[in-house]
Amino acid sequence: MKNNSQPNRPIWFDATDQTVKIIDQRALPHELIIEPLYTVDDTIRAIGQMYVRGAPLIGVTAAYGVYLILTQKSGDIHYLKTECERLKAARPTAVNLSWAVDTMLSEILEEPDAQKHVAFALKKAGEIAEAEVERCFQIGKHGAKLIENISTFKKGKPVNILTHCNAGWLACVEYGTATAPIYVAHQKGVNVHVWVDETRPLNQGARLTAWELGKQGISHSVITDNTGGHLMQHGMVDIVIVGTDRTTYTGDVANKIGTYLKALAAKDNNVPFYVALPSSTFDWNIRDGVGEIPIELRDPDEVRMVQGQYENQTINVLVPPVDSPCVNYAFDVTPGRLISGLITEKGVCDASETAILSMFPEQKN
Amino acid sequence: MKNNSQPNRPIWFDATDQTVKIIDQRALPHELIIEPLYTVDDTIRAIGQMYVRGAPLIGVTAAYGVYLILTQKSGDIHYLKTECERLKAARPTAVNLSWAVDTMLSEILEEPDAQKHVAFALKKAGEIAEAEVERCFQIGKHGAKLIENISTFKKGKPVNILTHCNAGWLACVEYGTATAPIYVAHQKGVNVHVWVDETRPLNQGARLTAWELGKQGISHSVITDNTGGHLMQHGMVDIVIVGTDRTTYTGDVANKIGTYLKALAAKDNNVPFYVALPSSTFDWNIRDGVGEIPIELRDPDEVRMVQGQYENQTINVLVPPVDSPCVNYAFDVTPGRLISGLITEKGVCDASETAILSMFPEQKN
Repeated sequence: MKNNSQPNRPIWFDATDQTVKIIDQRALPHELIIEPLYTVDDTIRAIGQMYVRGAPLIGVTAAYGVYLILTQKSGDIHYLKTECERLKAARPTAVNLSWAVDTMLSEILEEPDAQKHVAFALKKAGEIAEAEVERCFQIGKHGAKLIENISTFKKGKPVNILTHCNAGWLACVEYGTATAPIYVAHQKGVNVHVWVDETRPLNQGARLTAWELGKQGISHSVITDNTGGHLMQHGMVDIVIVGTDRTTYTGDVANKIGTYLKALAAKDNNVPFYVALPSSTFDWNIRDGVGEIPIELRDPDEVRMVQGQYENQTINVLVPPVDSPCVNYAFDVTPGRLISGLITEKGVCDASETAILSMFPEQKN
Repeated sequence: MKNNSQPNRPIWFDATDQTVKIIDQRALPHELIIEPLYTVDDTIRAIGQMYVRGAPLIGVTAAYGVYLILTQKSGDIHYLKTECERLKAARPTAVNLSWAVDTMLSEILEEPDAQKHVAFALKKAGEIAEAEVERCFQIGKHGAKLIENISTFKKGKPVNILTHCNAGWLACVEYGTATAPIYVAHQKGVNVHVWVDETRPLNQGARLTAWELGKQGISHSVITDNTGGHLMQHGMVDIVIVGTDRTTYTGDVANKIGTYLKALAAKDNNVPFYVALPSSTFDWNIRDGVGEIPIELRDPDEVRMVQGQYENQTINVLVPPVDSPCVNYAFDVTPGRLISGLITEKGVCDASETAILSMFPEQKN
């Protein structure tokens, strides 16, 4: 990703000083802070305190964390295993975290020569990162076709894409999921404009997606989360593309709170509504998304306080009366009936059990 | 309205020091600033700079403004008329502003004895305020029955009411419109809990509605505008009541942006969705709300900046990247097909041309 000589990934191994580096996403968009990770403790802090966020990125960061354990002490398998357990507890809800640490550990243990472990771990972490990039690129390729088709129909006038939250490269490694079709279409010269839902309470749209798109020179406008319905009523949205945190095998999608409201408006106005996802976010055990997916109730202060810049400092301001209770549900579930299609690394399919299981037949038992 | 010995109206005539006083709503909820209005210039500034807002309140403030013109110079009809024109230009979009000034002026001019004009104007402004209170109380009485019915059905468990923006007493004089049924039901001892949409961009829900409800001791929770759909999917909303800025005679409602999204979610989950309004907000000339009601495009800085409290000061912080464009539509239109009913001062009716015209037969030509 082009990024004006600034970092173009949220994590990378800097060969010049042999250090793992990350963007501290908490300070975006007003400050671009790059942090080195020297130790597993640095890694645990970065994941736990959300310097990095987004399931794929948490996985990749953890993989580099295993490498850092070995740079601190190599050849002590008991130490390696203990530190890996500590790393896995950094943020226990993200599936990718355990998966990445376990994968790293089991592959390292297959190498009998402990002297090779450090180099092997570095190579393997890089491979995990590249695999994420490739999956996102495939999502981008499949999704870009949808945007190109609209562009052809609109005879080159801007294709207006609405997105919610940040499912961009900051949450992954490159391309992102919901943003991948936009980046690929833009690279191919398609004229796009993105409506960026600010995405309260944490404003990942206004803070992160707008920052990403701006760095890539992609035309965009930040709007309040209330605005999408009006835009759709007036023909100002051609397609909606969002990400997902968990997807049932029947096509229900749990994503950042407010996604469901946009899907309803899309349905009411015949606007295509797509969800972009790597197949790893499918939950093959859940049939009824609304009834069965547990929804995280988070700290009310995320609703109460808003982060922004004031006199060159990033601070938090209190909005409602100090004694008014706030309630903070983090996700909602969009039923498959409202979704036009799922964009996966294997292609686009309907958000239905039949279509999903015929694209992923290995899950059919 | 009970208000802990603080002001219980957004405007009043203080008999002890013979002064018109208002709440400067810009500072709420963190500071309660009461401003005296001594002159018509004070009044113009209060309306123009939104110390006071809400169509009914703007009208009442303007009525007191005409009284203040006369306290400055009485007996000079040319001066009175000129100053009235200047007052009407304070915020030219609000219909109630012109209406109140014109009503005051024509009634004053019917009194031949100019020495009586000051006292007459003060009395008349008070009457305009009381008429607003009575209309809101009637809305409250009719709407409270809907809440009481749900309470009976729920055997006294809290009735969960969702509202968007501020259509409370701060926008009117007492009771409000959307809040009137809530206040009346609460006064009658009905167990209510209000979900308060924060209502971006200006957060009138988080700042004003939450403050009002807190002062009345009414149980409430502030939520992001993204949250209502999830709550409705899970049976946590029993009724939605919102206000309106303009209502077509066919039942389409223009209200604060995001209202349409809540109406869609209510429909999808069989939650009753009501709009409370004095009949003065009907537009008897518009048939198709979505197609014909012009939607105000306001300053993008209202999206870009968020007001809140920091170190005991009320300040504004910048949220998105400084160079990301923002777009700020202020209202959207909810089609009548999504509305369960309209709560007016004359009673509750369907949001349809037939029902509206049979409740207001004088408009039938």
